[in-house]
Parts: sequence; C-alpha cells; structure tokens
Amino acid sequence: MNGPQLTAKDATSGTATTPSVKDLLPGGFRFAGVTAGIKASGKPDVSLIAGNGPLIAAGVYTQNQIVAAPVLWCRQRTPSGSIRAVVTVSGNANACTGTQGVADNRQIASTVAQSIGCHPDDVLVMSTGVIGQSLPMPKVLTGLENVHGQLGTLASDFCDASDAILTTDQARKISGASFRVDENEYRILAMAKGAGMIAPNMATFLCVMMTDYPLSPDTAQSILTRVSAKTFNCVSVDGHTSTNDTCLLLSSAAARSENTNADHTVFEAQASEVALQLAKRLVADGEGATHYIALHVIGADSDTDAGQIARTVAASNLVKTAITGGDPNWGRIVSAAGYAPAKLYPDQVKLSICGVDIYRNGTPLKFDAAALSAKMKSAAEVPLHLVVGPGPGSAMIYASDLTCDYVRFNSEYTT
Amino acid sequence: MNGPQLTAKDATSGTATTPSVKDLLPGGFRFAGVTAGIKASGKPDVSLIAGNGPLIAAGVYTQNQIVAAPVLWCRQRTPSGSIRAVVTVSGNANACTGTQGVADNRQIASTVAQSIGCHPDDVLVMSTGVIGQSLPMPKVLTGLENVHGQLGTLASDFCDASDAILTTDQARKISGASFRVDENEYRILAMAKGAGMIAPNMATFLCVMMTDYPLSPDTAQSILTRVSAKTFNCVSVDGHTSTNDTCLLLSSAAARSENTNADHTVFEAQASEVALQLAKRLVADGEGATHYIALHVIGADSDTDAGQIARTVAASNLVKTAITGGDPNWGRIVSAAGYAPAKLYPDQVKLSICGVDIYRNGTPLKFDAAALSAKMKSAAEVPLHLVVGPGPGSAMIYASDLTCDYVRFNSEYTT
Repeated sequence: MNGPQLTAKDATSGTATTPSVKDLLPGGFRFAGVTAGIKASGKPDVSLIAGNGPLIAAGVYTQNQIVAAPVLWCRQRTPSGSIRAVVTVSGNANACTGTQGVADNRQIASTVAQSIGCHPDDVLVMSTGVIGQSLPMPKVLTGLENVHGQLGTLASDFCDASDAILTTDQARKISGASFRVDENEYRILAMAKGAGMIAPNMATFLCVMMTDYPLSPDTAQSILTRVSAKTFNCVSVDGHTSTNDTCLLLSSAAARSENTNADHTVFEAQASEVALQLAKRLVADGEGATHYIALHVIGADSDTDAGQIARTVAASNLVKTAITGGDPNWGRIVSAAGYAPAKLYPDQVKLSICGVDIYRNGTPLKFDAAALSAKMKSAAEVPLHLVVGPGPGSAMIYASDLTCDYVRFNSEYTT
Repeated sequence: MNGPQLTAKDATSGTATTPSVKDLLPGGFRFAGVTAGIKASGKPDVSLIAGNGPLIAAGVYTQNQIVAAPVLWCRQRTPSGSIRAVVTVSGNANACTGTQGVADNRQIASTVAQSIGCHPDDVLVMSTGVIGQSLPMPKVLTGLENVHGQLGTLASDFCDASDAILTTDQARKISGASFRVDENEYRILAMAKGAGMIAPNMATFLCVMMTDYPLSPDTAQSILTRVSAKTFNCVSVDGHTSTNDTCLLLSSAAARSENTNADHTVFEAQASEVALQLAKRLVADGEGATHYIALHVIGADSDTDAGQIARTVAASNLVKTAITGGDPNWGRIVSAAGYAPAKLYPDQVKLSICGVDIYRNGTPLKFDAAALSAKMKSAAEVPLHLVVGPGPGSAMIYASDLTCDYVRFNSEYTT
C-alpha cells in the first residue's frame, strides 16, 4: 500500500488530514454534505456523491428479509455502468415504512436526477437512522436542493459528504490508498458509517468506495462481493443485522475491455486493505465499546463452520462482558463455541488469549491469571485464538465488547 | 391445579411458606443441604436428595457439545428405575476439567453411594458454578459426609436442599402442586436454579422435579422431554447455552405396569404447570433483569421456524435494551425477526406490544407512543405478539431484558 493510512483520529484532526484526503481523492467525482434538519441534533444529514460522467457501480446489501426502501431500489440497479450519483439521507432509515417509503425513495432519486440531468434509475439511494417513521419529505427535498449546489472536488467537500452519512458514530470513518498498475497511478478512497446494529453479513452499515481504477460493472461486482466477505462481513458489534446495510463500489473509469479475467490483483488487494481498515474502525467505534475482540477460529470442518463458531462466540454477552472486565474467563468462550451450530471436537479444543495458552485438548492449563487480566485490561485489541478440531476451516471476526454505556445508550435512545 | 402456587417471594418469606411446602412434599424422599466452603461466599453448596427406596429417574441435558463431567455421567444413567440419590455441588461446574473432572465426579458418586449403601451407578450428580477449575475435592468430600448426616423429611430439609443448588440466584426457586388421579392424591414438588447463562435448549439451569405419582422409567422420560420442550426450553436470559444444564424427574413410586400408553394426562398437565412456573421464575430472576418479555410468534411455516424467529428476537440486545428503556421501538423487533434463519413474509408481518397494535402488513400504525411507553415501563411482563406470515407455526418464549446491572455483574464476576 503506497498511500498513507488515514485513521479516525487523523480524519477528525482538522488541517493535518486535508493533504492526505487530497492526495487520495480519485478523479471524476464531486462531493457535498449539508444539514437539512432531519436529525434533531442539527448535524449534517444529506450527503451527495456525483460522477462527472457515468460511474461503474457495484453493490452488496443486507441479508435481512426485511429491507428498507432504498435497499430495494439499489439492489435492482447494481451492477451498472451508468450510475451518476449516490445520495444518502441519515437520521431516518426509511425502513418498515410501507408503500409511502417506496414512493418517498423514488421521489428522492427523481429529485436528484433532475438536478444532475439524468434518469432516476441512475441515482442510487442510501438511508440510515430510526426505523418505521416516514421521511420528513419537505426537509429532505430542501436538503437535496441545497446539497446539489454545494458539490465540489475539494478534500473538504469529501469530508462534508462523509460526515453527513454518520449517525451515532463518534468519528468520521474514511480510509484510502494510492497504488500503481502498469505504470499508471490510481486512487481508492472510501467513507463509511456504523456503530450500532452491526453484525456479520452486513449491518447498519453504509459504505461507498470510490476509485479511478478502470473496472467493468461485472468485475466491480465480483471484486466487491469478495472484498466484503473478508472484511465488512467479519465484524460484529451487537449481532443485529440491519434493514439498511449498503456497500457500494464506484469507479469513474470504465474498463476498455469487458474481459473479466483480467488481472485485478493489485486493485483487489488495495480495496481489501481499505475495507479492512474501515471494518476495524466500525468495531472500535461500536457503541460504548472499550475493547476490540479479534477472534481467529481454526481447525473447523469448513470455513463455513468456522464462521458459525466465530459468530456465535462473538455474539455471546457473557464473552463480551468478560472481555469488558479484562477477565480471562475462557470457560465462557469455550462453552459458547460448544453451542454454535457447527461441529467442534471437544477433546481437541485449544484456546489462547493475548498469546497466552490457557486451554488445551479439553483441559485447562496453568497460567498467571492476574498478569493476563492486566494485559487484557490495558490492550485495546484482545486477540483470541481458538482451535476447534483438526479440520481445514478457519474464520476471523472482529467484535466489540459490551458495556454499560451500550446498554444505557440503547435503552435511552428513543423511537 | 389444586395445590397452592409457591412464588419466589412466598418461598423466602419464612414461616408462611413452610405449610405449603409441607403440604406438597411427595412421600419417599429425604433432603439436605450444607455448606462445604466451595463457594467463597460461605453460602450452602452441597445438596442431597435421597429416595427411601429405588427411584424412577428421567433426565434432559444441555445441547452444548462441550458438557461437564456430571452431565456425561447422568446422560449414561437415565432413564433408570434404580436411582437412589441426586447430589449437587454448586460453586464449581466441574466443566472443561478434563480427565481429572471425570475422576472427581466418579469419586463424588462413589462417596454418596457408600453412605447410602448402593452402587455408584445409582447416584446422579449435578454441578454448577465457575467453568474450568478442578473441584476442591477435600472440601467436597467433607461436604458429602456432612450432608448425608443431615438428611430429613421436613419442609425445612427440602428448603435447605433447594438453597444449596443456587448460585447467583436472588431467590429460592420452588414450585409444586397436588392432584388426584383415580381417587388417589399425589404431589409434585420441584426445585431449580438459574439466573445467568440461560438460553433455550437448556442453560445453566438445574432442576429436580419429584413426585410420588407412579411412573415407569420410559414414561417418565417421554413426559419430561415433552414438558421441558414447552417450558424450560422456552426461556432466554442471555442466549448462552451452558455446559451443565440438567433437569431430572424423579418418582418414588414405580408404575405397576410398563404400559407406556396409559393415560398420564393429569400428571403431565400438573408437571407442565409446575415447570412453567419455574421457567418464568428463572427469567424474572435473570441477572439484572427489570422486565420479563413474553414473546408469542405465530404464522410461521412451522413451529420450528417460529421457534427460530422467537429465539432470534429474544436474543437481540437492541430488542432487550428497548424493553429495558420502555421504548416501543418496534423497528428493532421487526428487523430482528427479519434476520432470523427462518422464512418470514414481510408484507404480512404484524406486531403488538402490550396489546397495542403498532405494525401491520409492512406499514406502521399510528399509536400513542407516550402512553405505550408508560405501560411498558410499569409492567413487569411485556407481552409481544408477532405475526410473521400466514402459516400454522407458533412458538412462545420468555426472556429477560438487558440492563447495566447484567453487564456490571458479568464484567466484574471473576474466574
């Protein structure tokens, strides 16, 4: 990776960041973010990304059976070679809003299409926020009018657009890279949002990855599907899969050939790295989170089985609270693995926490619990390495711990 | 149900209870509970139930793939017609303790067998507490010696035995009934423990149901399996299925005939009611719980599908925290149903909370959110009624909410 890595801290520390974002801005895009009053907090809530010309676009979406109106809309329109804009409304998910929600979503696409001068089908829409309330359309329409007037190509425009997709996030989430392929320099820059309702297989998670690297729609789609599976689908805050998850990959450069067998290894590796940085940031910013659990499951009968076990362990409140308290309570981890819907070999189970072996082949090992607890408490990231048998299957998951702040936040958050 | 229903409050309010327990004590059993110092708290931790003669015994056990030594032991020995005693050690689960744990469990059974004068195979063993630490056998053996000397038939002896199986429970959990079949009077009385690590399909949950109603081993087993499926397997505190769950049904009266087709309807109904009372009490006593969620899912393709949806909704931290806060945030409930691994018909989904209809056929209904919130906050039990389609499948689940106290308790609890 040649480009600098932006951290959430960098991204919010003002001028120090601007050069980095500037260096990584892919050509062919304009950006804007405005405040339309959808959020009671008065924070920015309408974001627009527009292509100077048609954009290649791919998408992956929530696997929830109940999906928001914008997800229904986008699923039918990607992959595509003619997308002109992506508009995001934050503060209201437009989910479970019936036929009114579908009509409102269509009006948003039409309104943006009119300002841009394109067909509504070439406008993608994302939304996030409270479920089950109809959009305040007068405010949304005013916001759409304003945001179009603000479109620009500066790093600050990109940051405005990034900020306007956030909800309960504590920090702006962007990540990017520059790289060379065949003597040409390319850039990839991505924005994301997500802090709660985060679960494997997409969550209340929105992301737009933008590049000037040339791709065909089908290639973009297959790369995005693979990249998501290994990054965004491996994070868990609360195991709650949202109705609105959307991750888009946009390219401002159409591939000259439709050869989907061309070697896109360099691009895919860069996109994966950018996505992984964002995925980890989602977890680190999980509502109320104080630690970051990096769980590696190996030895399962298959990758699918390993994934099931990893997700089950990462979703256990008893595991999460043990990590919160810096307690090497490995019994909770091993017992959670035992009730996962995937085969495990009890006599071959091994576990290490922060590199300390504490359980092997069904028997606990002696270890310095006080020292390990101190290590867990001081580490931001707590690595768990769990062997579940002799098989070839493995999986990685990044999860947040569970704190009183999460409970307080989510029991006091009101509909 | 002719007998009085014991509530947790009754059971701990001293003399007022004693007559009730006394009236419901089935003949043919003796009881004792003592303090052996296994628990650091100094609370009672060794419990013994002995039959005056051989007992009919049936058992259902955790579905975790990793099971404690006493579960391995009991699974191989039920159903049986020759059980003489059930011994419980609390404060240490004897789980994930390797071959040492298996040997320790065998020694417990042998020691009790020696005092009782029977074969070790006729002693059942249960344990609960911290996972992964070997039992403090010198203390356990002293406790076993003492507990045998205390065996008695008084209500207070039964209460001592009930108290000694508890761990983090806030109250003694007992329930019982008396009933008549063919002019004969019978009794059933049960003790249970469980407050955390409670999930459907058994949890850190121990229960012994005792009766003087005549049963054959096979009949006892099939009745217990059916009763558990409709009661204990329908409760959820934290979705964490333990390594130690054990529920036993003991009868001091052998059926004269082995006819398993005999009509045991009255007994089964009484046993179900007793079990349901205990199951609800487990949830009400869930660690830190402030509300009790009674979720009824109907309209699924099958009962299995309905159960999957019910368990998924009940396990969602976002649903639980909404209930904690008295927030009618139905979007969280509907979206959790949507990511359950079972088919749901989005256009036919309906939801009511505390009897108030708030979502119908994919569209939110107008309702008085403030009034409903007040109702939720003041109710100990929050009923949720969720229709997921046009099918015949239904399921009921009882779950606790999620509070800071749960997080505090489980992050400060130490291995």
